[in-house]
Amino acid sequence: MPGMKDKELVLLAHGDGGLLSRRLLEKHFLPCFSNEILSELSDASVFTVEGGRVAVSTDSFVIDPIFFPGGDIGKLAVYGTVNDLAVSGARPAYLTASFIIEEGFPLTDLDKIVLSMAEAARRAGVKIIAGDTKVVGRGQADKIFITTTGIGFLPPGVDLGYHRLEPGDRVIVNGSLGNHGLAVLLQRETFGIASQVESDCAPLNLIIEKLLQRFEGIKLMRDLTRGGLATNAKEIALASKADIWLEEQALPVDEAVKGVTEMLGLDPLYLANEGKFLVIVSAGEADTLLSFLKEEGRSGNASLIGEVKAGKGNVYLKTALGGARKLNLLAGAPLPRIC
Amino acid sequence: MPGMKDKELVLLAHGDGGLLSRRLLEKHFLPCFSNEILSELSDASVFTVEGGRVAVSTDSFVIDPIFFPGGDIGKLAVYGTVNDLAVSGARPAYLTASFIIEEGFPLTDLDKIVLSMAEAARRAGVKIIAGDTKVVGRGQADKIFITTTGIGFLPPGVDLGYHRLEPGDRVIVNGSLGNHGLAVLLQRETFGIASQVESDCAPLNLIIEKLLQRFEGIKLMRDLTRGGLATNAKEIALASKADIWLEEQALPVDEAVKGVTEMLGLDPLYLANEGKFLVIVSAGEADTLLSFLKEEGRSGNASLIGEVKAGKGNVYLKTALGGARKLNLLAGAPLPRIC
Repeated sequence: MPGMKDKELVLLAHGDGGLLSRRLLEKHFLPCFSNEILSELSDASVFTVEGGRVAVSTDSFVIDPIFFPGGDIGKLAVYGTVNDLAVSGARPAYLTASFIIEEGFPLTDLDKIVLSMAEAARRAGVKIIAGDTKVVGRGQADKIFITTTGIGFLPPGVDLGYHRLEPGDRVIVNGSLGNHGLAVLLQRETFGIASQVESDCAPLNLIIEKLLQRFEGIKLMRDLTRGGLATNAKEIALASKADIWLEEQALPVDEAVKGVTEMLGLDPLYLANEGKFLVIVSAGEADTLLSFLKEEGRSGNASLIGEVKAGKGNVYLKTALGGARKLNLLAGAPLPRIC
Repeated sequence: MPGMKDKELVLLAHGDGGLLSRRLLEKHFLPCFSNEILSELSDASVFTVEGGRVAVSTDSFVIDPIFFPGGDIGKLAVYGTVNDLAVSGARPAYLTASFIIEEGFPLTDLDKIVLSMAEAARRAGVKIIAGDTKVVGRGQADKIFITTTGIGFLPPGVDLGYHRLEPGDRVIVNGSLGNHGLAVLLQRETFGIASQVESDCAPLNLIIEKLLQRFEGIKLMRDLTRGGLATNAKEIALASKADIWLEEQALPVDEAVKGVTEMLGLDPLYLANEGKFLVIVSAGEADTLLSFLKEEGRSGNASLIGEVKAGKGNVYLKTALGGARKLNLLAGAPLPRIC
């Protein structure tokens, strides 16, 4: 980074637990993340709970590039973990964040990422209560990796899971598919395509909390990240030993995504999303839930896309021509570092 | 890795959330980590708590080399986080583990690490309840990084913290200093020194639980990882605005460590430990706590090393010759990737 002074870059000594680690914490992390629990700066952060069910989820984020249309690795690291908790029915409350940074990473980029995490945490209503920073030498990591762990609380009565699926249940998705995966691929690869596709990176916990309060018929939810709709639907089918039938014509895919994926030979059903989830709901509540998503959730492209049937763990896509194609887990050409 | 078949290496597709990710989970992680919470394999893992105080700690482990005398990155990732919870007074109960792996990493090494984590978790009495795996391309990470987050419960009545320090309190350490840091440095650098120094990597929660049940005079504990005894003592002094006086002659340092550190110009007080902690305890309980550590804790080298005095946040080392040297936070030559 020509013209940059040493002090503007992350140094190995920022990760050795000494003076510079302390300065990094005090100048770059605490001003953004500050809350009464984190500020204690002890070996462990402490909060008080009432009795009940606690949900925990962890994810490492290694996305490349770290800044992409619609988001960045920091925003993704917050919403990714918040959304894992949300689709399990929990109300996300706390996050931890651990950073692995390559020596020489610009502190200005770190500040942008930390600020983005703080803003995302504020929007999602969670507190970042513990963290860690390690620095590795040049070439020993690619810029920055972030691992977040989320802790949330399951409201009494919430019971989601494979065991609740029944033939006749409906499958609903809250909006257009494939935007995150495609936006990241286009930013990374030089296909020479000018595109307006942005990541759909967004927190799902606020709308999901409302859905759960209103619709008792919700059986299961799942965020459609790595592997996309197809892989996630297949995993649900495998675990529940039911079949899932999806209607190709009902799947919401933005025109821009449709155009580019056709050109590149990609299938939007296998592309990652970062603000999309699938809800399996009893047939009787499907229509009102869909309307609620469109209106209250401002998810204009939310769609009823399929149905659960008795079966053996298969996912079928009913095509426009009336045929049916089996969908399997993502396999083959991997899409690395998509989240 | 000549002679190795592709199927014996971690591939990019092991991290894409599809078929190979599932196989990695089912064949390499679940058989070792299995417990009733993890086996659900949902977006979030759920456990039930009674009301009370919950402690959380997170750390990323990037140690180089990943296998070293006395341990490996997996064992370290479990005990490191368990110990952070333990010194805060909490009983560690659950861990999450997130892996960032370089493409081409041998699956046999992954298996060794996972097995080592499972054994460490068993010894420490914690369950690994959630996880994630990401794979990055060759040269985008150095072999494997592991981030663990620990969740523990603070027994009623436990009140540790800077606010409890008083002049006259004694400072005790549970054993010899500097072994972990030196063992790792010797393994990494080719100093041409044959040494028997092993990492002290060990779980501290079992002995700490007993100490807390028995000694009401315990004011504060701290594990002596990055930055060593000196940096950690200085951080305590800064936070409590008291002075800490350490007796050089009382500091337990193994002969082998003394010899090699003198030769290399290293200070064992700044070297990381992974099974050592400092206890600050009321003067009246210091002697019995020390005896208890030596006998019940089988820490023959446990020592009373100093005293808290009214002051301004300084740490002084009283040398054998009667002088006093100020100790500061680790600064200068960094010791990267020591944990």
